[in-house]
Amino acid sequence: MESFEFFNPTRIIFGRGTEKKIGEILKGDKIGKVLFVYGKSAIKKIGLYDTVVSSLKENGIEFVEHSGVKPNPVLSHTKEGIEKAKDYKVDAVLAVGGGSVIDEGKTIAVGVKNNRDIWDFFKRNIEIKKALPVYVILTVAATGSEMNGFAVITNEETQEKLSISSEYIFPKVSILNPELTFSVSAQYQAYAAVDAIAHVIEHYLSGSYCPKLQSRFIEGLIKSIMETTEIILKEPKNYNARAEFMWSATVALNGLARLGIKGGGFPNHMIAHALGALYDLPHGACLSIVIPAWMRWYLDKNLPQFERFARNIFNSDKAEEGIENLKSWFKKIGSPVSLKDAGILYKDIDMIAENAYNIAIVWQMEKTYTKQVLTEILKKADD
Amino acid sequence: MESFEFFNPTRIIFGRGTEKKIGEILKGDKIGKVLFVYGKSAIKKIGLYDTVVSSLKENGIEFVEHSGVKPNPVLSHTKEGIEKAKDYKVDAVLAVGGGSVIDEGKTIAVGVKNNRDIWDFFKRNIEIKKALPVYVILTVAATGSEMNGFAVITNEETQEKLSISSEYIFPKVSILNPELTFSVSAQYQAYAAVDAIAHVIEHYLSGSYCPKLQSRFIEGLIKSIMETTEIILKEPKNYNARAEFMWSATVALNGLARLGIKGGGFPNHMIAHALGALYDLPHGACLSIVIPAWMRWYLDKNLPQFERFARNIFNSDKAEEGIENLKSWFKKIGSPVSLKDAGILYKDIDMIAENAYNIAIVWQMEKTYTKQVLTEILKKADD
Repeated sequence: MESFEFFNPTRIIFGRGTEKKIGEILKGDKIGKVLFVYGKSAIKKIGLYDTVVSSLKENGIEFVEHSGVKPNPVLSHTKEGIEKAKDYKVDAVLAVGGGSVIDEGKTIAVGVKNNRDIWDFFKRNIEIKKALPVYVILTVAATGSEMNGFAVITNEETQEKLSISSEYIFPKVSILNPELTFSVSAQYQAYAAVDAIAHVIEHYLSGSYCPKLQSRFIEGLIKSIMETTEIILKEPKNYNARAEFMWSATVALNGLARLGIKGGGFPNHMIAHALGALYDLPHGACLSIVIPAWMRWYLDKNLPQFERFARNIFNSDKAEEGIENLKSWFKKIGSPVSLKDAGILYKDIDMIAENAYNIAIVWQMEKTYTKQVLTEILKKADD
Repeated sequence: MESFEFFNPTRIIFGRGTEKKIGEILKGDKIGKVLFVYGKSAIKKIGLYDTVVSSLKENGIEFVEHSGVKPNPVLSHTKEGIEKAKDYKVDAVLAVGGGSVIDEGKTIAVGVKNNRDIWDFFKRNIEIKKALPVYVILTVAATGSEMNGFAVITNEETQEKLSISSEYIFPKVSILNPELTFSVSAQYQAYAAVDAIAHVIEHYLSGSYCPKLQSRFIEGLIKSIMETTEIILKEPKNYNARAEFMWSATVALNGLARLGIKGGGFPNHMIAHALGALYDLPHGACLSIVIPAWMRWYLDKNLPQFERFARNIFNSDKAEEGIENLKSWFKKIGSPVSLKDAGILYKDIDMIAENAYNIAIVWQMEKTYTKQVLTEILKKADD
């Protein structure tokens, strides 16, 4: 079992109606003014905007709005948020939305407290030593950003999608009310399921030693994610299914799942980020294209764990069937499983491999993931 | 799925040789003087005492020793620790040992900062609002105290074994080196396994709704605890088995396992605490006596979950077989499974029920666990 350090100080408040507590929570933490970060109209449609504003006003919390966060949050908009937060001297960031809103909120929180180009932190792995506190009300369960120290931003000028990681960007409090996800569309639920599975499957399959405890934990998460997604697609307002999915997606990337696993990494995310940067495709869609291809390529490098996966998730004795069944399931729930499905041309593969290779360099994975290997994997995503 | 709040700020440092970092960690946190709490000679035998002292000295950390903590830590010794910590004006508590040492250390940390009889906090559920920071080096994996906000102390005068619960007593840092548990005896490993299983099985079986995610997580923990214990009993120095067991025991009671479970409680711990207070039996031994009896009594109140347990842990279709197989396994690893096994007389049952009932009142479980019910359960522990 590999040595590790684990620390996760985010406070989770989970359940019906919990979003109403936001003003009281901020007041309790002596926060006087927040930057209220959100996307477009989704939080207004479900009445959440009004609930948040009421709760803030009732508790005397001032707020400045920063809306219009894109599904793949972009650097230019993030920089606008940083300037706004500085101008209005906010004490904290309140991110109300899904992973994109949270990631942009976290990045703003870093930008406000550090007088340097924010992109430096992404590009050069510079250590983050301070940030404003971040509070979250989650409306899309998928990325796990509500309980981790990661943020992903796309630099639309350079077409780079990169991430930061720091203990200073764990949200202080994250409010998770499954009812707020009732309106997440079938399409986005599918992408969310792919993303959550990707978060646990990467180290599980790519590590050279996975403690059985962790294998079992991860398999339990995958089964719950699949089961609850199937229920949600039929019954979008099934509270228990939404709740179990929501908590599964959070736990999938709060650091627990990969503890003690030796080696491994996020190669699928790496390639998916390249697709996201180049085509502005939803993150889950990128992952469902990449994962089956990567699995085919990696299969014989870790056969026993692939066999375990096939057996415990799909009740199959053949490792290959595990891969094909997962691919079929992605397809069934409505997520693309090939470059063609997403309208990406075969001739683009070189360009995608080039972009992914640049991420591999930043992530220090370029020795394994050479341009040639990346091309080989991407070609397996073309059927 | 039940609403919940989750918060666990303990930093875990897990792996070989990690205990050497203690001085550096304390120095980094600007701690100048600690109360060094430990048991008897165990930490000296394995060289840990010397390692800790060296690390403290190298980093200029002063320390005052408070040794002699008993396996069921007692109030009188805890009070001595509080006085010592006050006299020497320590900044933190360093607990080096198993759950008993940590629990006494946590209680001392509360006592130093609150000028009132420490037993009041146990007896009357008084809210704890401050405590010294607690640092831990774990030498026996079992209770999970290294990553939670609980502490259990026995008042030997009144024969009461009660607990406190507070966010202020989560250890700030817990160092977990599986090698430090190599010398834990087969007997104590058995008790440890029972305790860790008890921590997850209680809510799993007694809750009225258990999300599948949580059932799967708990079943994975139970399987890993059983598997690794069997390896450890044969190969005490098997690092991976000790490591997986250690982390399983920590996760079993760090708050995660019972999130979202509706209802449920710790009835087995309640009765086991009564046995512990009256007979000074090891906690795990008390639990292995109580659990099969309680399961027999509770079986028809939550049959589907007992069936699930039998199926997923023992591959059996019959709920009753799940209970009997668990009892046999406890016996096989060397933990007592009846009052007789522990030399407790049938005529003592009334007295034990009386003691347990008093805990039930403090825990607000006395409506279900009347003296009559407790007697009925205890009688099932007499074969």
